Amino acid sequence: MPRIAYFGPQGTFTEQAARAFDAQAELVPHPTIPLAVAAVRAGEADFACVPVENSVEGAVSATMDALAVDEPVVAVAEHVLPIRFTVLTRPGTTEVATVASHPHALAQVQGWLAEHLPGAAQLAANSTAAAAVGVLEGRYDAAVTAPVAAAHYPLAELASDIADERDAVTRFLLLSRLTQAPEPTGADRTSVLAVVAHQPGELQNLLAELALRGINLSRIESRPLRGRFGEYRFYLDFDGHIAEPRVGDALAALHRRSQQVRFLGSYPKADAASSAAPAGHRAEDHHSSAAWLASLRSGGAE
Amino acid sequence: MPRIAYFGPQGTFTEQAARAFDAQAELVPHPTIPLAVAAVRAGEADFACVPVENSVEGAVSATMDALAVDEPVVAVAEHVLPIRFTVLTRPGTTEVATVASHPHALAQVQGWLAEHLPGAAQLAANSTAAAAVGVLEGRYDAAVTAPVAAAHYPLAELASDIADERDAVTRFLLLSRLTQAPEPTGADRTSVLAVVAHQPGELQNLLAELALRGINLSRIESRPLRGRFGEYRFYLDFDGHIAEPRVGDALAALHRRSQQVRFLGSYPKADAASSAAPAGHRAEDHHSSAAWLASLRSGGAE
Repeated sequence: MPRIAYFGPQGTFTEQAARAFDAQAELVPHPTIPLAVAAVRAGEADFACVPVENSVEGAVSATMDALAVDEPVVAVAEHVLPIRFTVLTRPGTTEVATVASHPHALAQVQGWLAEHLPGAAQLAANSTAAAAVGVLEGRYDAAVTAPVAAAHYPLAELASDIADERDAVTRFLLLSRLTQAPEPTGADRTSVLAVVAHQPGELQNLLAELALRGINLSRIESRPLRGRFGEYRFYLDFDGHIAEPRVGDALAALHRRSQQVRFLGSYPKADAASSAAPAGHRAEDHHSSAAWLASLRSGGAE
Repeated sequence: MPRIAYFGPQGTFTEQAARAFDAQAELVPHPTIPLAVAAVRAGEADFACVPVENSVEGAVSATMDALAVDEPVVAVAEHVLPIRFTVLTRPGTTEVATVASHPHALAQVQGWLAEHLPGAAQLAANSTAAAAVGVLEGRYDAAVTAPVAAAHYPLAELASDIADERDAVTRFLLLSRLTQAPEPTGADRTSVLAVVAHQPGELQNLLAELALRGINLSRIESRPLRGRFGEYRFYLDFDGHIAEPRVGDALAALHRRSQQVRFLGSYPKADAASSAAPAGHRAEDHHSSAAWLASLRSGGAE
């Protein structure tokens, strides 16, 4: 039975995502994202389940930073969870003076709070579940939580299925110590981070390395590098699998062009949308062009 | 002793270039460029010496077309000849009513002719040397020729070292049947022709495949494809040798991106200017990125 470290405590969206990756796994909550990732690096867990981006709030900085440092870990799966919140209170609560949650969660229910709890002070908790625990312990009157929290804590549902943005989703990654990537499925995503020289055009060049090889970029994020003014670490997600020639060629080109590049995994896309290479960029095109080149180099005919 | 077929007759600039490639070679004149190239294809000559571009007149269409059809031949050397003309007449000629030469040669002495032979009719000959033969046979009064022609024909020099454009040069290629390219010298050029789909951006994409790999384009020519409206064959010359990883990668990419691509050779540059790859594109950068990728693909650490 695999062990999954996740950003806990129990009752968070991350726990829901971890269960979606493997309903049979042993789930081990960790108080922060870096600690959950560190558990994988230390071999205490087989995988770590962490949020990586939210459609409303954007990138989860703690995850981005955890991926960039220390021993490499790679994503082997992703899961996309629709984000609908539940508001929990102690049974019998009639007045809500304080409402707590993770800041990302609070940000996604501002409309609902303005309408239903306009007088409540909003307090930041370490996680949606920590807010539920705080309600249980009497520190807050209400918590904005994941639906799964209602199953863990003896609290009353003041409201459920709320979200200002009805289409909000959060994307989670299942991280593993560096091993062989999962087999290509035909609907794969590859993630990489790259640090490039602080020169005009360098980011464009990175992107051109992908575009020229018929590789569809699905996401780009940048994080400033500490202590290096004007320099950024770029996170790229794109269609395709490291086993494909076009992706291998692009990764090797990024390696040559970057000060630092780190492979963050090739894994099946949650939406299962085809990542097939366009004409001219398929494996058979690469094999055919490589055979042509090899023939020329050995003095053969075209 | 190698045999070099060249675009003759004797006494042309092409003969001068052929002698520059190999002073000991047996030189065999052919009446047209396609016939000189055909002699190599048929194995009747080891090499063909043909003009490929002139700094004033541009590409030599007959050579460009000959390279594109039939069995492939590749350039193994290039030579750049300064172009200065001699004007030859029959000894004792006092009036010049007609002056003949190859049209490219006539074009390069229009200023001199306007000043010194303003009344002479200009007639096109198949080559500068054929014009000299025509003078010998009494068909023309004067011929604009290569300096070497004076050594072959019993004619008088009316003028020498003339050229409207003092910096005019013609570039010649030494063509061979397809064999192993000459060893890289560090100052190499690679030539290729490519036919791409008639779509916006396709030429830009070809050029980007080179630029992204740190490959300096030295020349681009286009020739319309017969019977295919709006479609062009592109001739590209760029720095580097097919044995280099960056050049091999670029050639393979052109192969995938083109309807047709033909390797026209990797050979030492006449000017011996370094073709060294810039940082990030050297063989060691490719070996390092390939090793990194291979390690990742086999499940190793970064």
